[in-house]
Amino acid sequence: MANSPLLTLTLCFLALISNSCFAARESTRLPLQQQQQYGQCRLQNLNPLQPYRQIQHEAGVTEIWDQNNDQMQCAGVAATRHRIEPRGLLLPSFNNAPMVVYVIKGQGVLGTTFPGCPETYQSLQQLSEEGTQYSQRSSRKDQHQKLHRFRRGDVLALPAGVAHWVYNDGGDQLVVVVVHDTSNKDNQLDQNLRRFFLAGNSQERRQESLHGQDHSGDNVLQGFDPEILAEAFDVNIETARRLQSENDKRGFIVRVERGFEVVRPGRVEEEEEEREYGTNGLEETICSMRIKENIADPERADVYTARGGRISTVNSHNLPILRDIQLSAERGVLYRNAMVAPHWNQNAHSIMYIIRGSGRVQIVGNSNRPAFDGEVRQGQLLVIPQNFAVVKLAGDQGLEWISIKTNDLAKTSPLSGRTSVIRAIPEAVLANAYQISRAEARRLKYNREEVTIHSPRRGRSQQKASAWSIANEL
Amino acid sequence: MANSPLLTLTLCFLALISNSCFAARESTRLPLQQQQQYGQCRLQNLNPLQPYRQIQHEAGVTEIWDQNNDQMQCAGVAATRHRIEPRGLLLPSFNNAPMVVYVIKGQGVLGTTFPGCPETYQSLQQLSEEGTQYSQRSSRKDQHQKLHRFRRGDVLALPAGVAHWVYNDGGDQLVVVVVHDTSNKDNQLDQNLRRFFLAGNSQERRQESLHGQDHSGDNVLQGFDPEILAEAFDVNIETARRLQSENDKRGFIVRVERGFEVVRPGRVEEEEEEREYGTNGLEETICSMRIKENIADPERADVYTARGGRISTVNSHNLPILRDIQLSAERGVLYRNAMVAPHWNQNAHSIMYIIRGSGRVQIVGNSNRPAFDGEVRQGQLLVIPQNFAVVKLAGDQGLEWISIKTNDLAKTSPLSGRTSVIRAIPEAVLANAYQISRAEARRLKYNREEVTIHSPRRGRSQQKASAWSIANEL
Amino acid sequence: MANSPLLTLTLCFLALISNSCFAARESTRLPLQQQQQYGQCRLQNLNPLQPYRQIQHEAGVTEIWDQNNDQMQCAGVAATRHRIEPRGLLLPSFNNAPMVVYVIKGQGVLGTTFPGCPETYQSLQQLSEEGTQYSQRSSRKDQHQKLHRFRRGDVLALPAGVAHWVYNDGGDQLVVVVVHDTSNKDNQLDQNLRRFFLAGNSQERRQESLHGQDHSGDNVLQGFDPEILAEAFDVNIETARRLQSENDKRGFIVRVERGFEVVRPGRVEEEEEEREYGTNGLEETICSMRIKENIADPERADVYTARGGRISTVNSHNLPILRDIQLSAERGVLYRNAMVAPHWNQNAHSIMYIIRGSGRVQIVGNSNRPAFDGEVRQGQLLVIPQNFAVVKLAGDQGLEWISIKTNDLAKTSPLSGRTSVIRAIPEAVLANAYQISRAEARRLKYNREEVTIHSPRRGRSQQKASAWSIANEL
Repeated sequence: MANSPLLTLTLCFLALISNSCFAARESTRLPLQQQQQYGQCRLQNLNPLQPYRQIQHEAGVTEIWDQNNDQMQCAGVAATRHRIEPRGLLLPSFNNAPMVVYVIKGQGVLGTTFPGCPETYQSLQQLSEEGTQYSQRSSRKDQHQKLHRFRRGDVLALPAGVAHWVYNDGGDQLVVVVVHDTSNKDNQLDQNLRRFFLAGNSQERRQESLHGQDHSGDNVLQGFDPEILAEAFDVNIETARRLQSENDKRGFIVRVERGFEVVRPGRVEEEEEEREYGTNGLEETICSMRIKENIADPERADVYTARGGRISTVNSHNLPILRDIQLSAERGVLYRNAMVAPHWNQNAHSIMYIIRGSGRVQIVGNSNRPAFDGEVRQGQLLVIPQNFAVVKLAGDQGLEWISIKTNDLAKTSPLSGRTSVIRAIPEAVLANAYQISRAEARRLKYNREEVTIHSPRRGRSQQKASAWSIANEL
Repeated sequence: MANSPLLTLTLCFLALISNSCFAARESTRLPLQQQQQYGQCRLQNLNPLQPYRQIQHEAGVTEIWDQNNDQMQCAGVAATRHRIEPRGLLLPSFNNAPMVVYVIKGQGVLGTTFPGCPETYQSLQQLSEEGTQYSQRSSRKDQHQKLHRFRRGDVLALPAGVAHWVYNDGGDQLVVVVVHDTSNKDNQLDQNLRRFFLAGNSQERRQESLHGQDHSGDNVLQGFDPEILAEAFDVNIETARRLQSENDKRGFIVRVERGFEVVRPGRVEEEEEEREYGTNGLEETICSMRIKENIADPERADVYTARGGRISTVNSHNLPILRDIQLSAERGVLYRNAMVAPHWNQNAHSIMYIIRGSGRVQIVGNSNRPAFDGEVRQGQLLVIPQNFAVVKLAGDQGLEWISIKTNDLAKTSPLSGRTSVIRAIPEAVLANAYQISRAEARRLKYNREEVTIHSPRRGRSQQKASAWSIANEL
Repeated sequence: MANSPLLTLTLCFLALISNSCFAARESTRLPLQQQQQYGQCRLQNLNPLQPYRQIQHEAGVTEIWDQNNDQMQCAGVAATRHRIEPRGLLLPSFNNAPMVVYVIKGQGVLGTTFPGCPETYQSLQQLSEEGTQYSQRSSRKDQHQKLHRFRRGDVLALPAGVAHWVYNDGGDQLVVVVVHDTSNKDNQLDQNLRRFFLAGNSQERRQESLHGQDHSGDNVLQGFDPEILAEAFDVNIETARRLQSENDKRGFIVRVERGFEVVRPGRVEEEEEEREYGTNGLEETICSMRIKENIADPERADVYTARGGRISTVNSHNLPILRDIQLSAERGVLYRNAMVAPHWNQNAHSIMYIIRGSGRVQIVGNSNRPAFDGEVRQGQLLVIPQNFAVVKLAGDQGLEWISIKTNDLAKTSPLSGRTSVIRAIPEAVLANAYQISRAEARRLKYNREEVTIHSPRRGRSQQKASAWSIANEL
């Protein structure tokens, strides 16, 4: 069906996080882990992170952030970016950590399987293959399957251990960024992200690592005896061997030669899927739960400042499945030279991915020096630890980001603006704390009326009118 | 009352898990722990485990699995098997981890104490001593005590820190296997299982371990000043010293010379205890909760395949106390040559104990080689880590097991059969993933209609008719 | 406003837990931590602990317990004691762990900020400055602020990451002891307590520790660029610099020269705040939750024994915010020579702080030797690990303590008395377990009728009549 083209291999083609391929790294990595094992996070120096490894597949690229990085380890997360070409299919897999996916670009279909769910939850949607003679559709319906159409701006949430696949049925490249919460209660293995594929072949040369590290991603069906697979599926031995994909050189994103056509569900089903779930979450099981919420629409913003920008939040109040996986997300848009008020995350780490533009970020921990003070640019990831104070300023092109937070109801404490901590402290306390006059204390509390997002100051904003408009963004 | 017979002592008589007695082991154990402390589980090589230490008591034997074994450590569990002779009494104790007990053989009485419960929950059952002149029963009722009769096939659940004792009032040996969840949220100490006895004497020679390890089980009353105990109980100093059992050489399972007679509760109380609790769990406190569920009855099976076997599950839906301790159990029976479909545990480790028979098990992690491929036999314990794929095949005598799972609502994802992940993936995706035809993809999805348990294939099953019948099992 | 008097500096003035100042300690501390990292708590030898460091401020003293101590690390807690002079203001701060405060002496006002709460929850109370000409109160109300008056015997509970300040508006020194639960689920950083101040200046010399340790407490505003602060608050650069308190030498407890006057709320509001919340906790959010409960009133005692003493408990049943932070507290008063029955904590560690008097405490783990047997005195802290058995005896002056427990519904199992475990075990079991007669077993069960607190035995109590009376205590 699909031929197997020669692939440009990176040094660690399909190594998927395994460290065994960079023997030289071990000597530096271990002491850091050791450091953390002594009960301390090294967080004095934070840095925006780029992916450290790239895996080329037949129809796409997977980029992986180093989960042994201090910041990633301390936050207990792993991150991945997939670029999937049109007609590219990310093969079915599951892993040991809940995850949040943000769709940066393009569109596609996500297929999930929840084997415990009753058959009545089967999806009405069907996939048919373009141009085939296969007109007689099987009378048996596909069961337990859910197909989720997604597009730019969607947040998708998936529990640990749930098998899923992704198909790009659009005309453009599909780009998604994924944050995995490996320190989540639902991961009972160690903190390494482990990917379990149900098809494909990693091609990775197996070498016993000195430190006994497991491989971190391969087709688990390869580990079974083909005779047993044949018996399990009641198929012949040749089909069973196909499941093991031994000679498959396409990687884990494969090209569907003639493409799929996804039968789009009627308007009614769409609306039903999009309906708001009330506070009565009792009836809602994992089987019927929405896993998707779009947060790119400017009208959906939770916080909006006319010349500043906006923030949209998805948490367990508007996407209840997040209660189970204890994650949430925030999408921010800052116009030119605008600012997110200095604030701290009360109950979560924030994993900030820059979608577009650039800006300046300052992060301060329980110290008098910043843990980070510098520029962030499109494509970078920045860990903002729980309770660390942070301020974000947009550059001349504005700044757009998605932050995944390690709490389903993440709360922030702004220092300035109408809902700020400083406004909540009585004038007399501020005056004495900072040794300023009562009049100064009042200015500190009341000069900024804007909530969370601050537009550039009057003098400046006149000169530097934002080049961005809401229309431009979308 | 009971005389103290000479006991056959093992090398580490009553050492109860303490490692201090095998100094030679330290050198290998520490690096493994160190390995795990660096944030990784060593799970490439799994193995069925036998108990590594045996403790002989006056009226029974305690066998203990090595909790420093990589698999046990990674799963965060400890395991014990008690063989209790008729009229044997396992002395009162508690420990720092919730536990699930499975009754392999025999019958008995479990006494539990929930000191926080009101007196109205006192048990109506009473113990009286056979053949004694003690006819004048105390007018004061025993308070806060619950007596639970149990028999083969019962699952018993106990929270951390709850004192309990066991008495074998049957005519045959009583055999139970216990899995302790030391990584449970309810254990705030370290991951070592610690046993606190309220009577008896471990006889263990105290040596300061090089690594400062605590003793792992002794009569805590020995640590108190006898004067203080006398004051606390308002008894004379001689009785206080008896609590410390200094010269008691019977171990922790003692023989009750003349036996107890357990006054069996009337039919009404039995039924009341056995009644199903509805979804309204609000009224149900730890005081009134059932702690017992029998899962040996074939009619109770959740999954049943005529020529294959069956699986029965006890989880927080049918035994609500499991919600508190976040454990569940599954009892499986496979007939000759039948198979449990390859599957993975989505949200739990599975600690599989072989009750009877033998079989072949393959376990595959996120690697292309099996982490285990071999035979399992009666009496062995096998750790199947979360998300690892596993397939089980019965041998010629069939296979029977109990699995304790580290989640009160453990979920599995079968790969084959009617509720499988493969059936939930569209044909077009399977065809492209495995580079097979649409017809092959359909066979892969639909050939096996059976749920979870697969009978031997038609050709084979005719020749090898199962020697087991349901009648035989019970 | 406030002048900056010369302060008596301790060797590690304002070092706040940072270990960098005692380089010599590193060599001993690391192995201990390493020990714990190997998965074991060193708990064979427990000891009452004094604060190991004292920090002198302008208007008070902060004393800190060594959180690297084995017992503190194993229990996963940190502890602090503040002594605040009249008109002393503890500057606003937050930290990475939930905390319980007990007011040992004096009175004051606690200001908290919950930025997520709607404006309708703003406090009606106001602070005005004594003797100022500032009569024209700002027409803008202080928003999101809550002022909590507290006094001796109050327990105050605060979630992680919530900014708060304390002011002593009484005529006497205010003394509070604080226990921070650094191993709480709400702390996603490492187990080090980190203090984030919003004002003040630690004066600490920064040295890069060999082990890369973060500073543990400073004014986070110092880490931001003053230009950015000026922009954030829309104030001039001079005011922004004041926020950084660069030249402030007053420490973190400063003197308010002319004092505040707290406008006391009317009787109605007081009562409303004190009202009992029912079981319907659905409506109750963090915004409206009480954070305070007084447990010094003898009439409030949960357990009372005429010549023995009493115990009062605050847990999530009577202070629902404790459900969120999973802590509770118990205040105990023992009269001369009285005893708390030997018992163990089923599901929590207990951090016992001696408020007054002295006594003898024995603690026994899973060993036959006591982990502690000795005297405790006013001002000491003692960790009683989960499941370890403990007995407390008052000295000639009686004994008074507060215990913070690491569970919002901590449960104890007493060994003696009416609600004891021994009483819950049938006579026949006791007789066989301890090799005593049935008559002795009955005495063991029934001689002590008192619940939890045992008065001195009859013979003794006649001679040593308690010098304490309830009237005396208050």
